[in-house]
Amino acid sequence: MSKSIKVFAPATVANVGSGFDILGFALHEPGDELSVKISGKPGIRIINKTPFAIPESPEKNVSGISLKAMLQQLKSNQGFEIEILKKIMPGSGLGSSAAGSTASIFAANELLGRPFTLEELIPFAMEGERSVSGIAHADNVGPALLGGFVLIRSYRPLDIIRLEYPKKLHCAVVHPQIEVRTEDARKILKDKITLKDAIVQWGNVAGLISGLYRGDYDLIGRSLVDVIIEPIRSVLIPGFDAVKKAALDAGALGCSISGSGPSIFALCRSFRDAERVALQMSETFNDAGIENHSYVSIIGDTGTRIID
Amino acid sequence: MSKSIKVFAPATVANVGSGFDILGFALHEPGDELSVKISGKPGIRIINKTPFAIPESPEKNVSGISLKAMLQQLKSNQGFEIEILKKIMPGSGLGSSAAGSTASIFAANELLGRPFTLEELIPFAMEGERSVSGIAHADNVGPALLGGFVLIRSYRPLDIIRLEYPKKLHCAVVHPQIEVRTEDARKILKDKITLKDAIVQWGNVAGLISGLYRGDYDLIGRSLVDVIIEPIRSVLIPGFDAVKKAALDAGALGCSISGSGPSIFALCRSFRDAERVALQMSETFNDAGIENHSYVSIIGDTGTRIID
Repeated sequence: MSKSIKVFAPATVANVGSGFDILGFALHEPGDELSVKISGKPGIRIINKTPFAIPESPEKNVSGISLKAMLQQLKSNQGFEIEILKKIMPGSGLGSSAAGSTASIFAANELLGRPFTLEELIPFAMEGERSVSGIAHADNVGPALLGGFVLIRSYRPLDIIRLEYPKKLHCAVVHPQIEVRTEDARKILKDKITLKDAIVQWGNVAGLISGLYRGDYDLIGRSLVDVIIEPIRSVLIPGFDAVKKAALDAGALGCSISGSGPSIFALCRSFRDAERVALQMSETFNDAGIENHSYVSIIGDTGTRIID
Repeated sequence: MSKSIKVFAPATVANVGSGFDILGFALHEPGDELSVKISGKPGIRIINKTPFAIPESPEKNVSGISLKAMLQQLKSNQGFEIEILKKIMPGSGLGSSAAGSTASIFAANELLGRPFTLEELIPFAMEGERSVSGIAHADNVGPALLGGFVLIRSYRPLDIIRLEYPKKLHCAVVHPQIEVRTEDARKILKDKITLKDAIVQWGNVAGLISGLYRGDYDLIGRSLVDVIIEPIRSVLIPGFDAVKKAALDAGALGCSISGSGPSIFALCRSFRDAERVALQMSETFNDAGIENHSYVSIIGDTGTRIID
């Protein structure tokens, strides 16, 4: 049994247009890197190697919180030392807290001889999410752990399905340097929606799932429409409409808000398409004077993984 | 070119639990039988061979209404004679008006040398539906024409997808002899629903579609849950809860209201399962003193078809 391990947990895109709270997918990169070491003494010690500040108290850091939940279940007081190099910016809408929550428990699970399956790890990672947003959602931690396209069919009981999808599906993401807090993005949503809009939405959810299974890019594109959440949340992202238009004009299948924003993602048929789309999205933010970072990635098939 | 043709249009189950207004499937049987003949003089003549009364005026009969819509599009004043033998009871919730609407245009399309594809016929059949319920819905006429499991992803524009599904999937249906008018069943629905319920519903829609593509019977069963429409409409069907319980106890994957009711359907793994489930559902209605008819059928892969 190894005493230390280095793992990578990918960025993830939750909601995916019509699938608010139930759908998410993993990118192949970027992602957070954690080195996790079995420690001789009890307790979790966190060392930040990231060039910006993150909480180092294990009670306040998501990697510590999820790991504590896992150790509690195991009734173990094994100690761990965790070095964190974050590459997913907190508050980007790209599952930064999910990556932090999954990486530590994935690594510890490996070091302890895999007492849990990947699916069994998800509830512990959800505790990390709860600590950040107040809600133990699974649409980032699910794909961050399992990789690929993931459906949270139900929360009670937790029922997580890894969907099929066309293997050439790529994603362009642009992260504008503005702050949208997950909590605020939740608060502006309305408690009630019209049945009429809900029918449009679940038609699109059904179309998206069907398009993924069939590998039908046009159907995926037609179905990547959110009539309920995006119209409300997009007002928190200056330039959203122009960036979305730029993505679609550049050949994106569809485009919407990643998680609770402010990042915007677009699904594309190929790496080349995604590169062109990312460039146009980024330039549109540039034109509006909004600093931004863009990423291009294939859908990440493996999720959290050992890199050393 | 033949001068007369006999066609069969199957009963259909719309909504399918979580898929209100967007999902439907065809049964292999029962169905309506129409004999359609090219006539020497213009106009549509309807002859009822059914042992109960139906409108014989082509302006009031759905077979006449859909056919008129089709002939109008063709700018044709070709005359037709239509003999109707209905086997799907009007008001059963099994797509009786959809079968009537599709059979006539399917037959006329054949007799005229197929000026339209099956998909192109759907809007004409929807006119038949509009005449009955006030709403041109497509979740019965879609599967009645195309067969199989059908998704209406969008109404504007009309986007109809034939889904994959496990070929052994069977259906048990029980039709209690009580009246529920489609119009009334619409009226009692609420215009607004909670976002929370909507999320549960589209999680189940996504699970159902995924289960159909994977051929995962358990997932189909877990996803066949309607938290929005069924709780309201089921109060119009005396004995609903007991019949549903009987179906699930007898091994049904899931059970809900067919269309706007009063028929209740259950999906099953096999013909044997469906037979047992239908019997238990029927006996539960019998015990409550409610006369009923039950049907057992595989999902109908072909939809409307020539039988002579």
